Amino acid sequence: MQSDSPKRAILLFTCPDQKGLVSMISGFIAQYRGNIISLQEHVDAHDKTFFLRVVWDMEGFDIPGNELDDAFQPVGKKFNAHWNIMFTGRKLRIAVMVSKYEHCLQELLWRQRLNESAYEIPLIISNHPDLSGMAEYHRIPYHVFPITKENKDSQEEAEIKLLEENNIDAIVLARYMQVLTSSFVEKYPNRIINIHHSFLPAFMGGNPYKQAYERGVKIIGATSHYVTQDLDEGPIIEQDIIRISHRDSVEDLKRRGRDLERIVLAKAVNYHAEHRILVNGKKTVVFE
Amino acid sequence: MQSDSPKRAILLFTCPDQKGLVSMISGFIAQYRGNIISLQEHVDAHDKTFFLRVVWDMEGFDIPGNELDDAFQPVGKKFNAHWNIMFTGRKLRIAVMVSKYEHCLQELLWRQRLNESAYEIPLIISNHPDLSGMAEYHRIPYHVFPITKENKDSQEEAEIKLLEENNIDAIVLARYMQVLTSSFVEKYPNRIINIHHSFLPAFMGGNPYKQAYERGVKIIGATSHYVTQDLDEGPIIEQDIIRISHRDSVEDLKRRGRDLERIVLAKAVNYHAEHRILVNGKKTVVFE
Amino acid sequence: MQSDSPKRAILLFTCPDQKGLVSMISGFIAQYRGNIISLQEHVDAHDKTFFLRVVWDMEGFDIPGNELDDAFQPVGKKFNAHWNIMFTGRKLRIAVMVSKYEHCLQELLWRQRLNESAYEIPLIISNHPDLSGMAEYHRIPYHVFPITKENKDSQEEAEIKLLEENNIDAIVLARYMQVLTSSFVEKYPNRIINIHHSFLPAFMGGNPYKQAYERGVKIIGATSHYVTQDLDEGPIIEQDIIRISHRDSVEDLKRRGRDLERIVLAKAVNYHAEHRILVNGKKTVVFE
Amino acid sequence: MQSDSPKRAILLFTCPDQKGLVSMISGFIAQYRGNIISLQEHVDAHDKTFFLRVVWDMEGFDIPGNELDDAFQPVGKKFNAHWNIMFTGRKLRIAVMVSKYEHCLQELLWRQRLNESAYEIPLIISNHPDLSGMAEYHRIPYHVFPITKENKDSQEEAEIKLLEENNIDAIVLARYMQVLTSSFVEKYPNRIINIHHSFLPAFMGGNPYKQAYERGVKIIGATSHYVTQDLDEGPIIEQDIIRISHRDSVEDLKRRGRDLERIVLAKAVNYHAEHRILVNGKKTVVFE
Repeated sequence: MQSDSPKRAILLFTCPDQKGLVSMISGFIAQYRGNIISLQEHVDAHDKTFFLRVVWDMEGFDIPGNELDDAFQPVGKKFNAHWNIMFTGRKLRIAVMVSKYEHCLQELLWRQRLNESAYEIPLIISNHPDLSGMAEYHRIPYHVFPITKENKDSQEEAEIKLLEENNIDAIVLARYMQVLTSSFVEKYPNRIINIHHSFLPAFMGGNPYKQAYERGVKIIGATSHYVTQDLDEGPIIEQDIIRISHRDSVEDLKRRGRDLERIVLAKAVNYHAEHRILVNGKKTVVFE
Repeated sequence: MQSDSPKRAILLFTCPDQKGLVSMISGFIAQYRGNIISLQEHVDAHDKTFFLRVVWDMEGFDIPGNELDDAFQPVGKKFNAHWNIMFTGRKLRIAVMVSKYEHCLQELLWRQRLNESAYEIPLIISNHPDLSGMAEYHRIPYHVFPITKENKDSQEEAEIKLLEENNIDAIVLARYMQVLTSSFVEKYPNRIINIHHSFLPAFMGGNPYKQAYERGVKIIGATSHYVTQDLDEGPIIEQDIIRISHRDSVEDLKRRGRDLERIVLAKAVNYHAEHRILVNGKKTVVFE
Repeated sequence: MQSDSPKRAILLFTCPDQKGLVSMISGFIAQYRGNIISLQEHVDAHDKTFFLRVVWDMEGFDIPGNELDDAFQPVGKKFNAHWNIMFTGRKLRIAVMVSKYEHCLQELLWRQRLNESAYEIPLIISNHPDLSGMAEYHRIPYHVFPITKENKDSQEEAEIKLLEENNIDAIVLARYMQVLTSSFVEKYPNRIINIHHSFLPAFMGGNPYKQAYERGVKIIGATSHYVTQDLDEGPIIEQDIIRISHRDSVEDLKRRGRDLERIVLAKAVNYHAEHRILVNGKKTVVFE
Repeated sequence: MQSDSPKRAILLFTCPDQKGLVSMISGFIAQYRGNIISLQEHVDAHDKTFFLRVVWDMEGFDIPGNELDDAFQPVGKKFNAHWNIMFTGRKLRIAVMVSKYEHCLQELLWRQRLNESAYEIPLIISNHPDLSGMAEYHRIPYHVFPITKENKDSQEEAEIKLLEENNIDAIVLARYMQVLTSSFVEKYPNRIINIHHSFLPAFMGGNPYKQAYERGVKIIGATSHYVTQDLDEGPIIEQDIIRISHRDSVEDLKRRGRDLERIVLAKAVNYHAEHRILVNGKKTVVFE
């Protein structure tokens, strides 16, 4: 219920592990009379890396929002940290990219319309016109960029221009059936979220439901992950599964898998929009 | 893997919510050069109550273990807190009470023998001799206290004497088919763990599998909870479920339910032994 | 994928158990050169009752569809059976009744639009105008019948008239916040499907999420069942659960529970529309 | 509850699909006055293959058990079927092969001791002496065959001799850390059951928990399958999963995965012992 809550600050913070980190950060907040709503930390024992997410009320906090970054600089620098401070008042601006399947797009549109989500969807991009009606119903601009081998680079450039003009924070590939080029991916590190319709790393590549059917697995899954240069290899955000049996055909898997895909993707987008994810190399820390 | 770890301190702490709590506690630890391994907190927004579990290395910590309680007193008092400090070196001493069903007892015995659990089982109490062979195999004293209406009070007194002589920290009712008297329960507040073979509060009382069968539910559950004066009403620690169908008879439910009961009970006992549970009125905060 | 399949017959059959039932029924189908696609049977060992669902191709079957009922009469009568023969070509006509929550309605509308479901939704009934926009988008008539204590009987009569005029086969209460009168319920035995937002029989009655929060359960559920005279006591069709924790507020439970409610209800409606359910007293046999 | 039931016959039957199969088989049983307890069938629509499992009472059946094979020959031959008839009175004789991990072995021993399982364990084979104490407690012969590169073939020959002398029906690899040679595997087609500690086909090969940790998956699994020449490629019988998080170390995965492995393996062994599995090429049909 982001929208009705009083304004809060969210700090995501990561640095080499050392003594006193929680004390220093919570001390900073206490010093300026902030009330901590939630604090979660994790230490990667293998890499000796520290991860933290802390949320505090801005009401009654002595530092105004626009001066907070500057005020926190000394703490961040002292620990050689990567850190970001966000505020709950501002909804994340998400562009959704789709092809012809509607289930994931519908799920995201419905959730943003409930006005409970921490994101808004200012625009939809597609390589096909098929889902424009749904966009229209939700009154969201729907931009069609047909992709061919020849025009891929230029079309992507046009897409990026559009994304930039709209101050898009993150991109969701909601069963977008195109592989983005490296230069597109590089523009949005850990800001492009994909849904893969298998329990990765099982059944990477194309037609995972057919692969699953042929292997005779008893469970199928879906995986939402950040997009990196290596296809299907990006940091995993969320996964879930359903049980299947010998009675299920490939078509059944596709149909039943849709319920999984849209829920898994919606969860991952929520985690991202609520600033609950810290990337740790090829993995994620998700503070639920 | 408690056993191989270096010695650590675990603080469980609860008090009325206010600003600066995390800072004060983490500051205390940092001040004496403790390295925080894990910190989890929760605020009950309804009751305005603060709950915290923090674990830190005792190696290199400036206060020796036996002086830690005294040293922390000023912090605890300042916030009008309930708190406890435990150490990972010492295994919790658990007495298991059973009747005739072996599955829960076996699960607990097996786990303690692996030497990975945070508890040991110095004795078993039963109202029947049936499971003495299993106790013998694990070389654990097995005490039989047959219970009748007439002797219940005196037998329980004898049991309590035995528990006290053996410095028992907590009691696990592993399908113990007797209801403990109020005076027994009062002796061990939030220290008696029961397994109920239903998804409480559904099917309270006797024969829950038969009740479930007759109601025609599609899912059965098991619930582990602390024992209070009100039967089946104590704070819930852990629950889990399995799917069933019209094909399952009452006997099937009993048999399949066993796999659920033992896993749910074992999890709850682990949480308790690892000091992960804070009781919040009729509910629990479990820091997994 | 009912829609693309060749036309098939579905027989639902129940009678007192005895020898030779499967042989007699499958023999009937074989005698007229039917190809069995699927046959599922169940014997309630307690009540000695036999349940069967069998599906066969009508292509190449020697009896035309409109003569099948008559032809099967001797078999049905011989065994003193209740039975029904349906055909896959015809979609079940379902009326959805809603109040103000949209998630369950949206789920059903979306699934019928995919044209894969075995049902169509010719009309929506509500006691509030709130969801008329969604109906309009899907081009489905939306009828508002405001309910007060005084007009309840007459409004229900008007609703029944509307249902009958539209040849409605079954009614889905998609978070319809009114209790239907006995006379309404009697009109549609085992044909009104409700979604209750708890794991019945836990938390019957109003505000189940609040009840769940206050009891401190670790799992919440949703239950879809046929509506009978006894509120929340009808035969259960489908149930599912999600794990929750101390971090979840009542609002969180409501929000997270929605994902459960719509999936559980959609599954139950599918089972009904595909003629997979046989009612066995207060219970159901669901041939998945 | 096989042991207490009256004697029943179980027919597993597979052949090219055609009309009249269910009628012919159920007709055969009815003709000799058999009462069908359960009948399940499946048609692989892709391969046009028919699979059936039917159970009927031998009490009152006109053909004695020892003449049943002969009596059914004409039906089997007519349809060019593979088929087997088994009886519930006889427990399947299972040899368990282990190395040093005890959890899977203990699970199987415990279940057979409850006397509810459809199998007995007349012997245990290991390449290490570590688990002999557990075998002794259950009074089951424990044979140690240390394996080296040099003696592998001769040791396996000795093992096979032992298995044959003991009329072993099936072999369970309960975390047996050796790969069996082709000639061993060929001797027991679809009769050697393995547990792989990952959600196959993800993380084939060694150290799957380490692989899972490094990939950062949010769910781990276990897979029980028949052993074939191709390692980790045999027909899958059963799979299940548990959720993990960034908090879990490799050691945590190993510990938590154990609970999964033993339950998944025990389920698969039950399915096999109750003659519920039909192999369909690289896949299985499991009639639960």
